Amino acid sequence: NSSDKEKNDKHNGQRKVDQSDGTEVNATALSSGGNNNNKGIVSYWGIQPPKVTKEDGTPWKWSCFMPWETYKADLLIDMKKHHEPITLLDKVAYWTVKALRVPTDLFFQRRYGCRAMMLETVAAVPGMVGAMLLHCKSLRRFEHSGGWIKALLEEAENERMHLMTFIEVSKPKWYERVLVLITQGIFFNVYFMTYILSPKLAHRIVGYLEEEAIHSYTQFLKELDEGNIENVAAPAIAIDYWRLTQDATLKDVVMVVRADEAHHRDVNHFASDIYYRGQELKDSPAPLGYH
Amino acid sequence: NSSDKEKNDKHNGQRKVDQSDGTEVNATALSSGGNNNNKGIVSYWGIQPPKVTKEDGTPWKWSCFMPWETYKADLLIDMKKHHEPITLLDKVAYWTVKALRVPTDLFFQRRYGCRAMMLETVAAVPGMVGAMLLHCKSLRRFEHSGGWIKALLEEAENERMHLMTFIEVSKPKWYERVLVLITQGIFFNVYFMTYILSPKLAHRIVGYLEEEAIHSYTQFLKELDEGNIENVAAPAIAIDYWRLTQDATLKDVVMVVRADEAHHRDVNHFASDIYYRGQELKDSPAPLGYH
Ligand SMILES: [Fe+2]
Ligand SMILES: [Fe+2]
Ligand SMILES: [Fe+2]
Ligand SMILES: [Fe+2]
Repeated sequence: NSSDKEKNDKHNGQRKVDQSDGTEVNATALSSGGNNNNKGIVSYWGIQPPKVTKEDGTPWKWSCFMPWETYKADLLIDMKKHHEPITLLDKVAYWTVKALRVPTDLFFQRRYGCRAMMLETVAAVPGMVGAMLLHCKSLRRFEHSGGWIKALLEEAENERMHLMTFIEVSKPKWYERVLVLITQGIFFNVYFMTYILSPKLAHRIVGYLEEEAIHSYTQFLKELDEGNIENVAAPAIAIDYWRLTQDATLKDVVMVVRADEAHHRDVNHFASDIYYRGQELKDSPAPLGYH
Repeated sequence: NSSDKEKNDKHNGQRKVDQSDGTEVNATALSSGGNNNNKGIVSYWGIQPPKVTKEDGTPWKWSCFMPWETYKADLLIDMKKHHEPITLLDKVAYWTVKALRVPTDLFFQRRYGCRAMMLETVAAVPGMVGAMLLHCKSLRRFEHSGGWIKALLEEAENERMHLMTFIEVSKPKWYERVLVLITQGIFFNVYFMTYILSPKLAHRIVGYLEEEAIHSYTQFLKELDEGNIENVAAPAIAIDYWRLTQDATLKDVVMVVRADEAHHRDVNHFASDIYYRGQELKDSPAPLGYH
């Protein structure tokens, strides 16, 4: 069926890298100069950025993501799936997220572009924190990870790409930058401690955060449909990352981002379920490449 | 030439994933049971581990790494390259590493298998810490990463694979596990603080640590050649990860691991050089897929 086809398509990203050897220059020269240019420095270490090309042979213009990380989003994913909070821990997770929504709604109101940009700076944190803690645990215990480190890193990188997309649509003001700084400082540490104390709770919270993200992107789509937000052209970075057509619009971008959030919801509720079953993540092979 | 050929080869890893939809079961049922099995749990979330196959069509048997992460190591890399410490910061980095070698040599003496296993638990930390800090910085500043987050994550995952390989050769004793626990606790925090204060110093230290790693793997090879350590068959995980032949031995494994360390040395000295030039990492595209 078409969903399977899409899922195969997304792994056909071309992976052709030509890493030529750099010109050797004297190392001492490197340690002194202050020549600041954006082309990168010639390296004694034989390192040059890989020469990556698109499928059509033209040079790849992004260095923050590579062609083989791009994919076609599975838009058919169920947006309504919801984990009913039954246990006390689930209820704590659910009401924490519901409580966080109140000040967020008050602050952003109907500025969904700004809201998306600001919230993605937070959304990219849990995957990285979880991956780092699992990585350290794997090393400490001399144990395999079951692919979960990678799966959580994929989530973190995907969320960072959401942010890189939305900064093309909406520019942060100075007080928004300050707010992000403070929020990240608090959220990183709180989530870090939560994950150490109970990964079961931490993944459940993220599951519910993703449910809210789906909701707010659905509102975003409604505003676009009603013409309250202008349906501008999709940023170039989004077209390359989600393999959109050249005439894609902001609406197409919000659709694929929302599909991503639904996938994150599944992965995180699933991770929490694994702990509920008395297992550790490594006991269930991770959903790698699940977009 | 043969080096270029190898570099192309290593990006031909097959990338075919079939992610079937999971059977839907009741979510409440998941939250209760404690059925502990290693086959993974059936998920309401439609998530099943991807069905991955090898190039020859047989099922992929690892979940901690995927076929497209495997590569042929570039054994032609210069093992002798050394960054001469000139500035004060370089000297601090150099002598810190030299000082750390004294207790390490005393503790392990000529037990190189054990040494490799123990040191890889530490070696996988810097890449993850650096990547996490760059990730948070990228989010906080609404900035692209230039691929460096990914490059440092590749290093961390590569080091973790070194560990997964060496635990097949040498099993940790209980007091070695305790030592790893303590060392990780200290090293993680010290490196974290160092990276925040001076990424220039942090990458330089890792550069020198990798130079020492090359040295100790060279000693390991010498012991294998002289028959003081038995040249056993290569572990299956190593054969799949570095695409070795079925009759590969421990010596082949140590050769590819040493080549990896030489690549890490280059990446980290290079990263430090970028800061010496007054740039930030994101200003020079990262050496992605540099093995
Ligand atoms: Fe997102
Ligand atoms: Fe998300
Ligand atoms: Fe290593
Ligand atoms: Fe290394």
